[in-house]
Amino acid sequence: MTHRIAILGASGYTGAELVRLIAGHPNMKITALAAERKAGQTMAQVFPHLRHLDLPTLCKIGEIDFGQIDLCFCALPHKTSQEIIRELPKTLKIVDLSADFRLRDPEAYQEWYGNPHAAVAMQEEAVYGLTEFYRNEIAAARLVAGTGCNAATGQYVLRPLIAAGVIDLDEIILDLKCAVSGAGRALKENLLHAELSEGYHAYAVGGTHRHLGEFDQEFSKLAGRPVRIQFTPHLIPVNRGILATAYVRGAADEIHGALSRAYADEPFLQVLPLGETPSTHHVRGSNFCHLGVVADRIAGRSIIVGALDNLTKGSSGQALQNANLMLREPETEGLLMAPLFP
Amino acid sequence: MTHRIAILGASGYTGAELVRLIAGHPNMKITALAAERKAGQTMAQVFPHLRHLDLPTLCKIGEIDFGQIDLCFCALPHKTSQEIIRELPKTLKIVDLSADFRLRDPEAYQEWYGNPHAAVAMQEEAVYGLTEFYRNEIAAARLVAGTGCNAATGQYVLRPLIAAGVIDLDEIILDLKCAVSGAGRALKENLLHAELSEGYHAYAVGGTHRHLGEFDQEFSKLAGRPVRIQFTPHLIPVNRGILATAYVRGAADEIHGALSRAYADEPFLQVLPLGETPSTHHVRGSNFCHLGVVADRIAGRSIIVGALDNLTKGSSGQALQNANLMLREPETEGLLMAPLFP
Amino acid sequence: MTHRIAILGASGYTGAELVRLIAGHPNMKITALAAERKAGQTMAQVFPHLRHLDLPTLCKIGEIDFGQIDLCFCALPHKTSQEIIRELPKTLKIVDLSADFRLRDPEAYQEWYGNPHAAVAMQEEAVYGLTEFYRNEIAAARLVAGTGCNAATGQYVLRPLIAAGVIDLDEIILDLKCAVSGAGRALKENLLHAELSEGYHAYAVGGTHRHLGEFDQEFSKLAGRPVRIQFTPHLIPVNRGILATAYVRGAADEIHGALSRAYADEPFLQVLPLGETPSTHHVRGSNFCHLGVVADRIAGRSIIVGALDNLTKGSSGQALQNANLMLREPETEGLLMAPLFP
Amino acid sequence: MTHRIAILGASGYTGAELVRLIAGHPNMKITALAAERKAGQTMAQVFPHLRHLDLPTLCKIGEIDFGQIDLCFCALPHKTSQEIIRELPKTLKIVDLSADFRLRDPEAYQEWYGNPHAAVAMQEEAVYGLTEFYRNEIAAARLVAGTGCNAATGQYVLRPLIAAGVIDLDEIILDLKCAVSGAGRALKENLLHAELSEGYHAYAVGGTHRHLGEFDQEFSKLAGRPVRIQFTPHLIPVNRGILATAYVRGAADEIHGALSRAYADEPFLQVLPLGETPSTHHVRGSNFCHLGVVADRIAGRSIIVGALDNLTKGSSGQALQNANLMLREPETEGLLMAPLFP
Repeated sequence: MTHRIAILGASGYTGAELVRLIAGHPNMKITALAAERKAGQTMAQVFPHLRHLDLPTLCKIGEIDFGQIDLCFCALPHKTSQEIIRELPKTLKIVDLSADFRLRDPEAYQEWYGNPHAAVAMQEEAVYGLTEFYRNEIAAARLVAGTGCNAATGQYVLRPLIAAGVIDLDEIILDLKCAVSGAGRALKENLLHAELSEGYHAYAVGGTHRHLGEFDQEFSKLAGRPVRIQFTPHLIPVNRGILATAYVRGAADEIHGALSRAYADEPFLQVLPLGETPSTHHVRGSNFCHLGVVADRIAGRSIIVGALDNLTKGSSGQALQNANLMLREPETEGLLMAPLFP
Repeated sequence: MTHRIAILGASGYTGAELVRLIAGHPNMKITALAAERKAGQTMAQVFPHLRHLDLPTLCKIGEIDFGQIDLCFCALPHKTSQEIIRELPKTLKIVDLSADFRLRDPEAYQEWYGNPHAAVAMQEEAVYGLTEFYRNEIAAARLVAGTGCNAATGQYVLRPLIAAGVIDLDEIILDLKCAVSGAGRALKENLLHAELSEGYHAYAVGGTHRHLGEFDQEFSKLAGRPVRIQFTPHLIPVNRGILATAYVRGAADEIHGALSRAYADEPFLQVLPLGETPSTHHVRGSNFCHLGVVADRIAGRSIIVGALDNLTKGSSGQALQNANLMLREPETEGLLMAPLFP
Repeated sequence: MTHRIAILGASGYTGAELVRLIAGHPNMKITALAAERKAGQTMAQVFPHLRHLDLPTLCKIGEIDFGQIDLCFCALPHKTSQEIIRELPKTLKIVDLSADFRLRDPEAYQEWYGNPHAAVAMQEEAVYGLTEFYRNEIAAARLVAGTGCNAATGQYVLRPLIAAGVIDLDEIILDLKCAVSGAGRALKENLLHAELSEGYHAYAVGGTHRHLGEFDQEFSKLAGRPVRIQFTPHLIPVNRGILATAYVRGAADEIHGALSRAYADEPFLQVLPLGETPSTHHVRGSNFCHLGVVADRIAGRSIIVGALDNLTKGSSGQALQNANLMLREPETEGLLMAPLFP
Repeated sequence: MTHRIAILGASGYTGAELVRLIAGHPNMKITALAAERKAGQTMAQVFPHLRHLDLPTLCKIGEIDFGQIDLCFCALPHKTSQEIIRELPKTLKIVDLSADFRLRDPEAYQEWYGNPHAAVAMQEEAVYGLTEFYRNEIAAARLVAGTGCNAATGQYVLRPLIAAGVIDLDEIILDLKCAVSGAGRALKENLLHAELSEGYHAYAVGGTHRHLGEFDQEFSKLAGRPVRIQFTPHLIPVNRGILATAYVRGAADEIHGALSRAYADEPFLQVLPLGETPSTHHVRGSNFCHLGVVADRIAGRSIIVGALDNLTKGSSGQALQNANLMLREPETEGLLMAPLFP
């Protein structure tokens, strides 16, 4: 059986990445691609790397007959997404890649995003899309909220440690380095090639990055008490990749054991031998996440490093993985391609 | 039926690219990986991006039981390749990715490579591996010689024009821009990141690049008379991609027509609408080649631009495409993945 | 004596580059910096790399007392520049970095830029700013028109050959590779890091790039008869640098001789030994231009390669060199810094 | 008066950077350039970006008449440096850029570098070259030991805070991101362009990086008791730049005050307004170091970010600054050029 797929927001990077991945899926067929400002154009005009594919012409969302769609990916901008999803048929399966349904608490949403939520009821209904930790809920869900790409990386690094009780919950620092495509295809001066390449910097320093809302929600829920971490992202002049370096209090061997046990059966989460750490080079273009643990020279302190591709495992790959669960497809279908190196 | 595959020279970039591609092939299984200096290591140690795959440990060539191999890819250095292949069982199907069997004429080989050929008889037997133009011969061959990556790009741009007689054979200039990985994983000062990134330059200027031997051989054979082109490669600080800009005498519409007709049924060769030109961005990591034609402002002159990924369509993808033919697999099997962008 | 300098359009890359260079000039002081949309901000806010300098706050052009200015650099967008310059005091020395006064013929201007010129009389008065070839005129000029950065590179490669009569004027092909900063700080999707890095492509193929207007004007004037070349620029994912590869008919030794003689006393134009070619790596951040000549394997054909930094020798360095002449400063003052490598 | 300068190890990146800087110094003249394996070549052959300079041909160290040298920069590999310096005339002023004389304690040296020191007496004599903190000692020294580039960055970030007592000495984490040129021009597979570009990773994780020896020595001396920090460097695919992100316990305003006071009169150390953080983009090619402080959302915790160019302020610029002191030149001579952006 072939599932009929719609992608809203097909002219952005996560939209294009979804098309790339679904093109390799044997049981999905893209039957609608929407992009408001580029409606009427072909996907080959907007993304020439997809010109070999037989794809529907870009249309406006209003032109889609959602009765003919089995699952809809929403790769729309934050805030727009909730307004659109609110109006979609209530029977439609939806995987949202925006930030709009990640936070379950309307107050937390307003605090981090600055506006009241436009679809509070759906906010409650939405399942948080970190596949490995919400598998059953996702399989049963109608609306799944894709996680932040930084938030996914940090959680892959830290969740098993929090769950296993092997680290001090009040002493977690996450220094993260992310690639450029995470900022999307927006026309901003600070995203120009000449502004970004050949240098790097921190941003949202001091605890202002919105993905902290996800960390707070998820880690506190997991620990059963409030957990607040320190989190500093840095922008690296590379197109794909997130590297998260976590500084924690805990024994490296226990931490490595907790990670290894938690991910022993996970197809996409690979724990390196104790003492080795990963590189974003080795996950690029793939749905894999590599994780490594090292003991610090100071007794009782450890470093955990995680690497994934922000557009794949960090967003569109995760979205397809979730869609597979929602459609009763094998979870890894269309997602096992090897990373591209060099 | 699953074909048993060996790769000799698995610790180089074309070897790793073969593994990446074959991992997605339903009817091939890698049963031997050889790398003399890294024998005993796992592929994950040499190429961590392949750690999720279940692969044989690297061995020495002498350790392989070639009676258990259906097809062998040789991704060895030039000159080494002919010495190894000469000793392999005469019944073994071989796709060679080195330069050793590209030139059919022993004298031409010696002229361009500086040493007498060590396996002259096999040189005659080898089929030139430019798939779209030697399909039948490749399907029937025991030994296929992969083309140079620059040579492939230039031929995709020019062969249909020479064959159709729509350009002046004495006035062909090929200005080519190639990526860094084409030089392999060799330890050379001029391949260091600090030497290459943030700048670019021409090399082998004036007609000294060895791929000219292939152009001379193939274009002359095709034209039925000697054809010698001008060819200048440039090194661009990017890991994958070749862009070839050809300056010819001929009418753009006739050229575009000749290309379009020649490649109308080719799955991997995509001719853009007249007036558009391609980018290496849009073929990266894929087996596609994009081609475009534009009329110059000077009447009777045209520019043709071709783009492909040197490691895929330019070497390992081509090799797999040829292996598919040799093993009676569908020609495109394992090769239809979309390019990676951004 | 310290010259008082104004820069209009200080928030763009050529404006910032002027500030960088003038900061090292012993006899110039920047007394006004204009940037309409960023007026009121400090230069450190707009360009943090200049934060160590004591600079005037950005203002609007209308706020500048031009009676207190000795020389004004205009680094404004094309078309805006002519409208602003038309209104400036007629006694003010001006170096314009836009395209507005490069073409002397109003019809040629309209043909290439698509609109009638708004200051035709000044168009006639303006001196073309290719320093080494218009030195006396520049020293005596009130208004100097900076050349296009590609146009400068191509002319350094070709002018001495045309002047010496050592090449065929009807058989000149210029294949040029330029860096990203040449496109300025404009908010365009195709200038985003994720769109540009890791790939490259041709643009304005077929003779549509506006710098051809300059080539036509200058080469025809020099030859005393119409000269039209073929010119294809390519965009390379590097921030600074232009590499021009010229294909000509002529003897390499004569060409090398003509270049060497023409530039024997030029401080910034360096001719490499016959057979060697330059790299943009080795001129980055400097006012030098490196040039090399190689004989092709086809008798009677030669390749000349030129490299310079588009923001320095290609625009702002050239502008300062011209300003030095206009203000009776040593021509090289503030311009002899070594390139930055790696 | 013109000082006669020798550079030993002129074929490496720090050697070339010294030449670039000294070329702009009015009172220094390079009279000897040594590079053992490249002796006999010109500097233009080894570093074509320096071809415009009138420089001595590369020679062997043994060929230099040190009686004619006023100051000698040693840019030799670690361990080689101590063996060479041990044999130089005892009256010669020396600025060493290697790691050999950074650690005063022979045991600490052996612990971090794995071999006994070959010039223990000189180890005691050497002055640690962090200019702003050892100015008087450097001015009086015969042998100055250049600091590690990472060590310099970390100390600029942390020394004033330790000295002022505004942070908890047992809770310092330094997450550092450094550029590729810091690893030098060595032929190593992991420094190839194809291995490095488009990805990034941590290295020497857990407290094994040798620059920790410097941190331990200097911070402990400053605090008057043992101080051991956590330090994780990451390799970023950029040629120049170090960004150090420090996580500390202390009030941001007090920290910002301590940094601001400490560096109020420093020409090269620029403290940004509280709440802003720097980028390596804005110090590239310069001797400036930018520093910023932000309060974390968790009360009592702060983040300090420092940025400098590893080849300039981190090594060769520092070396020239120290040489200026040793030769009674103005400390900033030859070092005030603006950063190169973009």
